[in-house]
Amino acid sequence: MFPKNAWYVACTPDEIDEKPLGRKICGEPIAFFRGADGKAAAVEDFCPHRGAPLSLGKVVDGKLVCGYHGLEMGCDGKTIAMPGQRVRGFPPIRSFPVIERYGFIWIWPGDPAQADPAKLHHLEWAENPDWAYGGGLYHINCDYRLMIDNLMDLTHETYVHSTSIGQKEIDEAAPATKVEGDHVVTSRFMENIKAPPFWRMAMRANGLDDEADVDRWQICRFSPPSHVMIEVGVALAGKGGYNADPQYKASSIVVDFITPETETSHWYFWGMARNFKAHDKALTASIREGQGKIFGEDQEMLERQQQNLLLYPERNLLKLNIDAGGVQSRRVIDRLLAEERGAAAPASTTAL
Amino acid sequence: MFPKNAWYVACTPDEIDEKPLGRKICGEPIAFFRGADGKAAAVEDFCPHRGAPLSLGKVVDGKLVCGYHGLEMGCDGKTIAMPGQRVRGFPPIRSFPVIERYGFIWIWPGDPAQADPAKLHHLEWAENPDWAYGGGLYHINCDYRLMIDNLMDLTHETYVHSTSIGQKEIDEAAPATKVEGDHVVTSRFMENIKAPPFWRMAMRANGLDDEADVDRWQICRFSPPSHVMIEVGVALAGKGGYNADPQYKASSIVVDFITPETETSHWYFWGMARNFKAHDKALTASIREGQGKIFGEDQEMLERQQQNLLLYPERNLLKLNIDAGGVQSRRVIDRLLAEERGAAAPASTTAL
Amino acid sequence: MFPKNAWYVACTPDEIDEKPLGRKICGEPIAFFRGADGKAAAVEDFCPHRGAPLSLGKVVDGKLVCGYHGLEMGCDGKTIAMPGQRVRGFPPIRSFPVIERYGFIWIWPGDPAQADPAKLHHLEWAENPDWAYGGGLYHINCDYRLMIDNLMDLTHETYVHSTSIGQKEIDEAAPATKVEGDHVVTSRFMENIKAPPFWRMAMRANGLDDEADVDRWQICRFSPPSHVMIEVGVALAGKGGYNADPQYKASSIVVDFITPETETSHWYFWGMARNFKAHDKALTASIREGQGKIFGEDQEMLERQQQNLLLYPERNLLKLNIDAGGVQSRRVIDRLLAEERGAAAPASTTAL
Repeated sequence: MFPKNAWYVACTPDEIDEKPLGRKICGEPIAFFRGADGKAAAVEDFCPHRGAPLSLGKVVDGKLVCGYHGLEMGCDGKTIAMPGQRVRGFPPIRSFPVIERYGFIWIWPGDPAQADPAKLHHLEWAENPDWAYGGGLYHINCDYRLMIDNLMDLTHETYVHSTSIGQKEIDEAAPATKVEGDHVVTSRFMENIKAPPFWRMAMRANGLDDEADVDRWQICRFSPPSHVMIEVGVALAGKGGYNADPQYKASSIVVDFITPETETSHWYFWGMARNFKAHDKALTASIREGQGKIFGEDQEMLERQQQNLLLYPERNLLKLNIDAGGVQSRRVIDRLLAEERGAAAPASTTAL
Repeated sequence: MFPKNAWYVACTPDEIDEKPLGRKICGEPIAFFRGADGKAAAVEDFCPHRGAPLSLGKVVDGKLVCGYHGLEMGCDGKTIAMPGQRVRGFPPIRSFPVIERYGFIWIWPGDPAQADPAKLHHLEWAENPDWAYGGGLYHINCDYRLMIDNLMDLTHETYVHSTSIGQKEIDEAAPATKVEGDHVVTSRFMENIKAPPFWRMAMRANGLDDEADVDRWQICRFSPPSHVMIEVGVALAGKGGYNADPQYKASSIVVDFITPETETSHWYFWGMARNFKAHDKALTASIREGQGKIFGEDQEMLERQQQNLLLYPERNLLKLNIDAGGVQSRRVIDRLLAEERGAAAPASTTAL
Repeated sequence: MFPKNAWYVACTPDEIDEKPLGRKICGEPIAFFRGADGKAAAVEDFCPHRGAPLSLGKVVDGKLVCGYHGLEMGCDGKTIAMPGQRVRGFPPIRSFPVIERYGFIWIWPGDPAQADPAKLHHLEWAENPDWAYGGGLYHINCDYRLMIDNLMDLTHETYVHSTSIGQKEIDEAAPATKVEGDHVVTSRFMENIKAPPFWRMAMRANGLDDEADVDRWQICRFSPPSHVMIEVGVALAGKGGYNADPQYKASSIVVDFITPETETSHWYFWGMARNFKAHDKALTASIREGQGKIFGEDQEMLERQQQNLLLYPERNLLKLNIDAGGVQSRRVIDRLLAEERGAAAPASTTAL
């Protein structure tokens, strides 16, 4: 149950620089590669000749050459050539709209006619030299919506990430959730607290006294289909918190792109964008490593939660105030799904 | 197909001393922990908030704190508290009657109203300082009844355990099986034979000449739902066998608690209780290690047998005299299952 | 979907020299062992006593002794004896016709009455001292017919085996396929080319200049149920190619026995027979090692192709000229399957 008419992150550019990449997205096996002029492309990972996965082949002059019998596939899903064959009558395979931007390859798994580049999630920091980004990819065996729930309710940091970014005060600060069209924002503010270990590290990196009292904030922003950007940070207490002058702050954006693989698994692209010491690559690597460890702590919980929900599919879960971010995000997704079904129905009727 | 209104061994006390334990028993995921005053408790391994497994959390002041968002679960399945929440309306989860006794944690997976502690299997040796016990736990991928069959027909020792406790004379001594209410006893006596390696070791440990001729016995006692206690031993030949004076004997009780996990897997708690050199801990460890190796020899056979039976579910197996112990034990189980169904039916009718 | 009335390679003799072998063939678990006088035998891998796999037992005096409770099984599927039991009434299990010949154990999984040894695939080289053979066994998770396709269209060598036996000229030489009764032959001839690495090695081993131009041939011969013998070789250019005098040649026969395990897995017995330096065991070992690496290159492609076909079962694959060998081989198989169904139907009617 995932919207198909949407831009999802499929991979990072480096994953297709050397050779094609096979990755299942929204239930479909897809081969990603660089076509003519290095432009990213995506086609079904299914050779029209004998069904071999095209991603096991290689790219030659911008064509995806099947590694089984040499069929040459174009970026548009049409066979360009095959040794000793006339290929004009070969059935095409699906190709998918793809955009390379902001350091990611994005795919539109649904109706290509609706694949408007303007609908791509805008990442202002990604094109700003004052910002640095580092991130990674995890494969998680649970419904992508459980990850959205996870990220829209950071109460879990106190428990899952108790040694790094969790702290008791998160529990004590009730979050506020508001819905703005297709966007959901859940915010939490804590004042006059001590920073947890991760933020002490960031304060030191910013030249701030890591023993000082701070105001801390977490602003989780859901955008369809399944992106969660979280503004996080601390400022020296009483300097304005989220709105404090940068000299008193350590802050960043937690970046989460959650791409469904199947109904019960997803690709989790996580990372952090920051606007301090943007050119310090060692710091980028160090933050990335630390974040990777922290975000890895969620995996067992999410996968075991998924197993429990599969065992008891009829049970109703609680929807508390802390769950409002996830609950509202799912409502947006449900509405998009209904719209896709509604749009699909007449078309299908016409086809009859 | 397992009786639910019965006491099963769930775990050993050390498994919940440090942190909660998640274990599926009779098809249900259950979280075991120590509540107030260290008393063992068991609740569904399913947080009423979002379905996370409670066993991934930790115990604080006798409460099981969910490791995802901090819900505090009580031993009775009722939520005690949750940071920032009123929990009075939270739906309870199931709790299970639990008893800690004889060095085990016992669980009653069925109707709590019927969970009479007096129905617990009595282990006289477990509270007698003249006896020592050592044992372990194996996870076996087969129907728990195949393990009962295995233990009620020790003919297999000659083949599966040929280098330790098996010997040709077992085959030659026909077993006798009798049913006493819900209990089944299969006995086998061998006279004037040489002891096999395991018993030679035990004879030496008891100061007996391990080259001497012995009388050997095996008395397998099945009790519902799935316990098999086996009196085993050797005595110097002609001294009275099973009834010989202890100075002529090496004997012990093989202890088997077989707890269903699913229809085709179980938890196998095996061990040995002995009343010689009870205070010799090195001997306990050595016997435990030896028994662990021997009992591990059954695993592949049982699991492959299970695969065969799943492949040919319609085939009738033979029921020879050596199988009588298992056959009669299964009849007891079938009767208990029928009683549970009979008891359940009217209740269900009433509910309508 | 595999013919059952046919001789398949089940194993090599060394696999049953020391102990019984359990192997699933055409969907049935079978125990292979050496009966009286060392004669190969095959029975269901299912003890009539309690369903244990007989292959976990051992062979004593030509009888297969069950490793669980000592039942002694004969080569004919009838129980010979069991300690303490009268076995006359024991139900027999199926036994399978077996032949040991040409360095293989062959099995007939279907109707024993039709198991004519004369129908065994004849391997002339296997009994000729001028020839040497080396081979191995791979377990492949795909329909056995995908392997037949693979071997009847060597176009894939250019892509899958580009560093050993593949070369661009294979693509450029159109293959010719002819059907002769139940046999299918696909041939390809290349003239005045450079030999690829594997054949250069063979030329050197034969005292030929490995830089010389050669004529190369590949003659793939399918025989039911699923054997593919491929005559391959090179000769110095202009010396007659396939028909050249042996002094100008390096040639061999690629031997492929493809035995279904399940609908989506098979046992792949691969090897090479050669008639040069037949007594050079080091060369046999070296060729075997090289061939093992090359043939291992197909595995991922075939298994991923199988996954794709399972995901899109309704898609029609292309049937190009290069696919004719596989297409015609499948037609032979389909005809044999129809014949088996036709033969089975009346018999079944009679039974009613």
